[in-house]
Amino acid sequence: MTESSPTNRLNDVVHQRHRLGILTICAETDRVEFGYLREALVLTAGNLSRHLTVLEEAGLVNSSKVIAGRRPRTWIRITRSGRTALDHELAALEELVGRRPGRAVE
Amino acid sequence: MTESSPTNRLNDVVHQRHRLGILTICAETDRVEFGYLREALVLTAGNLSRHLTVLEEAGLVNSSKVIAGRRPRTWIRITRSGRTALDHELAALEELVGRRPGRAVE
Repeated sequence: MTESSPTNRLNDVVHQRHRLGILTICAETDRVEFGYLREALVLTAGNLSRHLTVLEEAGLVNSSKVIAGRRPRTWIRITRSGRTALDHELAALEELVGRRPGRAVE
Repeated sequence: MTESSPTNRLNDVVHQRHRLGILTICAETDRVEFGYLREALVLTAGNLSRHLTVLEEAGLVNSSKVIAGRRPRTWIRITRSGRTALDHELAALEELVGRRPGRAVE
């Protein structure tokens, strides 16, 4: 019988590497500023915006614009669905990493 | 200072979930038959072929067609570069999984 691959349980919305970066960073804290994400992920503003739109449309993050002094700042928060989706992704990745060739069995 | 994300070290050629599935399966054995991959990854033949072409063009796998009886069979092997690329990917994923929120620190 053919064994199913853990990669079958990955979701393209979450798995794309920049979106995975956005979600893992957002999951570590309450809210994250747009400029911080852009720097941490080495993305252009346009590219980051596009990935955030995909995540927002899927209900995995939400964003709010706050005027602080002259400069509007955009804050991103992961939603409850976003945490669940990230947790499923990381569980599948953990299984995949556990199969790493040449890796010592623990 | 902004901390760089492990997702910055992921390579889109390897990270795409079906290609990651192909590479992990191929890394576990000497050679894998096309039909086995198709079943394990729940892909159509056309979709699997397209992903194999991307991996072959990147030098990460190679394939050979063998006539056995009436039916030609295609065998896929991971290359040395493919093993290295998969190892880099899995190392970055391992770091990411280690940051999993709510995960006990070992």
